[in-house]
Amino acid sequence: MIRTAIAGYGNLGKGVEAAIARADDMELVCVFTRRDPESVKPAGDVPVVSMSEMAAWKDKVDVVILCGGSATDLPHQTPEVASVFNVIDSFDTHANIPEHFKNVDEAAKAAGTAAIISCGWDPGLFSVNRVYAESILPCGNTYTFWGKGVSQGHSDAIRRIPGVKRGIQYTIPVPEALDAVREGKNPQLTTRQKHTRECFVVPEHGADKEAITEAIVTMKNYFDEYDTTVHFISDEEFVRDHSTLPHGGFVMRSGITGKATKQHIEYSLNLGSNPEFTASVLVAYARALKRLYDEGKTGAMTVFDIAPAYLSPLSAEELRSHLL
Amino acid sequence: MIRTAIAGYGNLGKGVEAAIARADDMELVCVFTRRDPESVKPAGDVPVVSMSEMAAWKDKVDVVILCGGSATDLPHQTPEVASVFNVIDSFDTHANIPEHFKNVDEAAKAAGTAAIISCGWDPGLFSVNRVYAESILPCGNTYTFWGKGVSQGHSDAIRRIPGVKRGIQYTIPVPEALDAVREGKNPQLTTRQKHTRECFVVPEHGADKEAITEAIVTMKNYFDEYDTTVHFISDEEFVRDHSTLPHGGFVMRSGITGKATKQHIEYSLNLGSNPEFTASVLVAYARALKRLYDEGKTGAMTVFDIAPAYLSPLSAEELRSHLL
Repeated sequence: MIRTAIAGYGNLGKGVEAAIARADDMELVCVFTRRDPESVKPAGDVPVVSMSEMAAWKDKVDVVILCGGSATDLPHQTPEVASVFNVIDSFDTHANIPEHFKNVDEAAKAAGTAAIISCGWDPGLFSVNRVYAESILPCGNTYTFWGKGVSQGHSDAIRRIPGVKRGIQYTIPVPEALDAVREGKNPQLTTRQKHTRECFVVPEHGADKEAITEAIVTMKNYFDEYDTTVHFISDEEFVRDHSTLPHGGFVMRSGITGKATKQHIEYSLNLGSNPEFTASVLVAYARALKRLYDEGKTGAMTVFDIAPAYLSPLSAEELRSHLL
Repeated sequence: MIRTAIAGYGNLGKGVEAAIARADDMELVCVFTRRDPESVKPAGDVPVVSMSEMAAWKDKVDVVILCGGSATDLPHQTPEVASVFNVIDSFDTHANIPEHFKNVDEAAKAAGTAAIISCGWDPGLFSVNRVYAESILPCGNTYTFWGKGVSQGHSDAIRRIPGVKRGIQYTIPVPEALDAVREGKNPQLTTRQKHTRECFVVPEHGADKEAITEAIVTMKNYFDEYDTTVHFISDEEFVRDHSTLPHGGFVMRSGITGKATKQHIEYSLNLGSNPEFTASVLVAYARALKRLYDEGKTGAMTVFDIAPAYLSPLSAEELRSHLL
């Protein structure tokens, strides 16, 4: 059994607990938290331990799965935990990945541990598909579309606007753009041509709806480069229709081989729950991490460095017989 | 530069030559053939060598890319070539993969060479996607659909029927089946419900069309379990509309996470040329093979054993910065 621990018990941590429960070769040893451990109630019967006491669990845990946020938690947490445990995170601030990799790699190598960073679906499975597709079709264009799904960052931005009681934002790929890529037209797409944004807002009593709409659609960096629609709904509608976190998207590679033969590779996800799916990716790669560590691997890795066989509970013989 | 050789110069071999020409870090050193070397004319300026003289090229070639057929060539050719060279093939007789792997593995380990078998899109990229998807969503069902595309085996079967001058067969996934899987209905699909078969036949002068149709649609193992349509066309139409070898298909994993959250992973290929695309996969994995051999790896491998980074000409730093 691979002994895992979760650090941070929010939506992602809950998803990891559920994913571990579905893995016959893995067990959850404990949950680490920065909150008062008494206040955290895991779904299963598992101890909750203060993050300050992590080190005492060194010999009881094979992999710590970090479930904190990329903005403030993971940049320091992943290197710190890597100095004691094998560790995996879903760090998703694309621009800072090289720096984060370096920090985690140094900490892990110094401690003789192994780490995987930026493991989810983007970065993660989408990245893997970009590498396969670009390696196989070197002559072509890669397109990534996101959605339909909830963007947490954009939803947070809406909720900061005065007069907004509740708000949620869906990113939606433009169907005509998807079609143009699939037809091998290799379009050059502007930000506006790739995605639209749809917002659902519950206004405070007496709020100025026109002002809210104006504040949303003109918001720099978030909405001003997009065609955005804003719908005002009731509290009841919000709870009924907008309480899950669906997401997904598409990675497409449109290329040519030979003289001018069109070839199209497409990978897509349609996710009922973004955090539960990200958690499932983390758990499969936690299995890989333990195996690679057992083979003597130390330092930081990404999804690019890990062969598919490491993710599966099946043996190499079983994989060749049943899935090749 | 990675020095490659092609063994067998048919459609696949021609595709490999074209794919190597698009790889800046690879060169084609020679073409090996069982035919009279004088009769083989590569597109590029490259020597053609009799297969019987392969061994003399041992120190000039890093990887031999085998482009023969799975029925009679590869079962003996891959182990034989592995006893001298690093070698890669696209062996696609699924049921015989374990035996083929064993034969190639033994030959390669004895010789200190490295080999990759069954490398194309199915087996190959589809297999990789089955492993990723099943590892991440252990609770669910996997579906593979093929087409729309030309099945060489079924086309050959048509051409053996008396009165058939030319014939080609397209395998087509049933749209309702694709939709049912995408909607998370987890359908149990019969052979007939998954694919239809469409045939285009040029009859010999005076041939009995009804007899040809009957012979096709009732043919055991090839057509009897499918809904098959047969179209009779002219020579001119055949040459104009059916002279390329398109193919493709879909790998879908429909699963649940958490209590009952639906999650859907889909990978698809829409290929203008099946052999040119298979060739492109072989060339990317030939790059990986050379790198793994340089790291000391010997014996047989499959796509499951190879991390994505090995396929790309980019460095690990470049991949992390640009594609993660």
